[in-house]
Amino acid sequence: MAEMLEKFEELHALLVEKKHRSFVETATDITPVDLADFLSELDDEMLLTAFRLLPKDVAADAFAELDSDVQEKIVLSTADTRLGQILDELAVDDAVDMLQELPASLVKRILRRASPETRALINKFLSYPDGSAGSVMTAEFLSLKESFTVREAVEHIRGTGIDKETVYVAYITDGHSMLRGIVSLRDLLFASEDTRIGDIMETDILSATTHEHREEVAEIISRYDLLALPIVDNEGRLVGIVTVDDAVDVLTEEATEDIEKMAGIAPSDKPYMKDTVPSIYKKRIPWLLLLMLSATFTGSIITHFDGLLSGYVLLTAFMPMLMNSGGNAGGQTSVTVIRALSLDEIRLRDIFRVWYKELRVALLSGLTLGAVNFIKTMLIDFGCVFSATNLLTAAIVSLTLVIIIPVANLIGASLPLLAKRLGFDPAVMASPFITTIVDAVSLLIFFSLAALWL
Amino acid sequence: MAEMLEKFEELHALLVEKKHRSFVETATDITPVDLADFLSELDDEMLLTAFRLLPKDVAADAFAELDSDVQEKIVLSTADTRLGQILDELAVDDAVDMLQELPASLVKRILRRASPETRALINKFLSYPDGSAGSVMTAEFLSLKESFTVREAVEHIRGTGIDKETVYVAYITDGHSMLRGIVSLRDLLFASEDTRIGDIMETDILSATTHEHREEVAEIISRYDLLALPIVDNEGRLVGIVTVDDAVDVLTEEATEDIEKMAGIAPSDKPYMKDTVPSIYKKRIPWLLLLMLSATFTGSIITHFDGLLSGYVLLTAFMPMLMNSGGNAGGQTSVTVIRALSLDEIRLRDIFRVWYKELRVALLSGLTLGAVNFIKTMLIDFGCVFSATNLLTAAIVSLTLVIIIPVANLIGASLPLLAKRLGFDPAVMASPFITTIVDAVSLLIFFSLAALWL
Repeated sequence: MAEMLEKFEELHALLVEKKHRSFVETATDITPVDLADFLSELDDEMLLTAFRLLPKDVAADAFAELDSDVQEKIVLSTADTRLGQILDELAVDDAVDMLQELPASLVKRILRRASPETRALINKFLSYPDGSAGSVMTAEFLSLKESFTVREAVEHIRGTGIDKETVYVAYITDGHSMLRGIVSLRDLLFASEDTRIGDIMETDILSATTHEHREEVAEIISRYDLLALPIVDNEGRLVGIVTVDDAVDVLTEEATEDIEKMAGIAPSDKPYMKDTVPSIYKKRIPWLLLLMLSATFTGSIITHFDGLLSGYVLLTAFMPMLMNSGGNAGGQTSVTVIRALSLDEIRLRDIFRVWYKELRVALLSGLTLGAVNFIKTMLIDFGCVFSATNLLTAAIVSLTLVIIIPVANLIGASLPLLAKRLGFDPAVMASPFITTIVDAVSLLIFFSLAALWL
Repeated sequence: MAEMLEKFEELHALLVEKKHRSFVETATDITPVDLADFLSELDDEMLLTAFRLLPKDVAADAFAELDSDVQEKIVLSTADTRLGQILDELAVDDAVDMLQELPASLVKRILRRASPETRALINKFLSYPDGSAGSVMTAEFLSLKESFTVREAVEHIRGTGIDKETVYVAYITDGHSMLRGIVSLRDLLFASEDTRIGDIMETDILSATTHEHREEVAEIISRYDLLALPIVDNEGRLVGIVTVDDAVDVLTEEATEDIEKMAGIAPSDKPYMKDTVPSIYKKRIPWLLLLMLSATFTGSIITHFDGLLSGYVLLTAFMPMLMNSGGNAGGQTSVTVIRALSLDEIRLRDIFRVWYKELRVALLSGLTLGAVNFIKTMLIDFGCVFSATNLLTAAIVSLTLVIIIPVANLIGASLPLLAKRLGFDPAVMASPFITTIVDAVSLLIFFSLAALWL
């Protein structure tokens, strides 16, 4: 890391001192992802100067790694001819990622300058829905014919393969682009030169279709430790592959989305520091409003018991503790169940086993919290005054805890499973939502017990 | 998926009908990860029968994919000689994973039957701390000498490479095991046969040391789209590699740990359905107790204002809504900041920019919530009775919202950054913790405003 920062300073100095040739040499030497990091830190003028200096293949590689706001800045100030060249150099999936973020008028302008083949391919890719396998696949894969010998295959790969995103697996298709088999580079290296590809190819292959969810594709790659998964269209024709590095990105983004949904935030596809204030506001306000309005229900429970409360204002002091404990216990359970669902560790039919497990955990937790609370209330809140009312109040609070923790855990376990059953994303059933329901239940139990005994 | 279930039924039927040869043929045909899934669903007796039937290499591959409780069942009922054979077949990292879960006496018994080389290697791997690069690396990598020609290299790989976990990259070391360069299988395929490896190897290589955190290693692999990262010891000697499929597992496990910590649960390394009730209880109860006890502070704020509350019991009805809204807003912010920190999207020095962003989001949110709340309170809670007290109460509640949302967001943004600065994991500073603090602050502001104006 420190090494990289030194390189950045060196690059910056070369740029300032206008030593352009040395700059290009040094910039070409570092990885595209590091070069993109360096470019992102420059001010607008320096960024454009640097970008113009780079050879078009280096520029394209770095461009693919830039955040969309920096890409847009570059696109707006770069000559159309050079944009066309860079677009031709980009992998199709990277070009599509970029175009999806830009205004439509700009997209048209750029596409006009690309080669007809690139344009056709990009237009096809742009039509795959966001989040589908088609939207994350690349069209740059190696394809071979069954009739090739190993020698012909290696020659074919030498001729076309260097630029392909992955050259460790080649795909064998027939005349109608139907996927027939795969062969790894390892197989080619170990086979004798005159072997027919058809004789060494693996025909029992996993694949996915373009409209499957990208998360499912990533999970297959992760489960079977694949380097790439072939993607076919509805007719079974090979149209692209998803590589393991893209699968890693998908899994990371999906984990982020889950975490955001659990906290009541609409998922974001922008890094936090790049997202605008109105955009962040729009992602957060719906849940805040919904949860605020649903708390009206909890308020009406309190109003219902206002006679009790005006007699025993002290009861109010225990409300936050009871609501939080219930909310936390329910939140722990719901988050555990949501994550287990998303990792395929539990299924719908496990609901009774989940209930049974949570019930036992909750009884243990409820009894612990109740006991500790009783001691704490008597010693601290009531300053060791062991009057009948004090003992009764402490007992009511503790008993409420013993009851609400199991209730909270059962609600926390059931709602995500219910959401899954109804076809919603279980992640929206996390802490904030559960808290609101558990609050109401907790207070209802607490006030009912108090009304009965006080 | 449906296809796989059919295969499982076929395998089960073959086992029940004692058609052992067909069973072995069919079992050998499916992937190790699917075979492990099948074995996990069997009852104990069938599991052991099935496992005994499998050839030792198939058994070892499936064994590596099993959960540790199933592994333990097998180990306890399998003859020592066969265990030794299977251990020799396992990749070292898989063997180490298994041994770490078993009781020490059993580990000794198994190691006694392994070959001396396997035993020495495993003992070395067992000494790497949990969560380190050393604990997830594999010792099975291809190593070549600089002086090899491409032809010699390919022959060497043919002789040793088939079993290696990854054969797409080979590592070049000198006589002292120092890492000198890497060469990809693609380079070998494209180079002429008489080229020296030293002339085509890449010498500018990324590596990590055995004691680095496994998450850092996974992030380097993800950032630079690598198939594997070489791991060196303190003296720079190559001792293993971490492959991309293991990096994917690490990233998934780390995301789960983050999610668990955010919900106030100690991280678990067992799938939910396999974890025992006492173990789940132990992971959840510390935070529940801590948060319950810290709510005492909120309770004491209420006790302090009991004079006010006995005069205006109605105020109590707004408490849950105010506490929840503050808690939710603070939770949204903290979760966003925690995730951004863990994805390296923000750093400590960004704290002022984060504050400024959150302050603007919070003002927008606070004003929206305040306005909606004022209207809702007057129309619904107060049934359109526009008395001076009602208007004043609604105004106080709404003003409290406008103040507490920014306070909650600033607390939610600051605590994870503070935790990071102090060297703690930011994830523990998530919703449950923030809620407790924001609760106290919200009530203090609410009661102070009410005491001032009512």
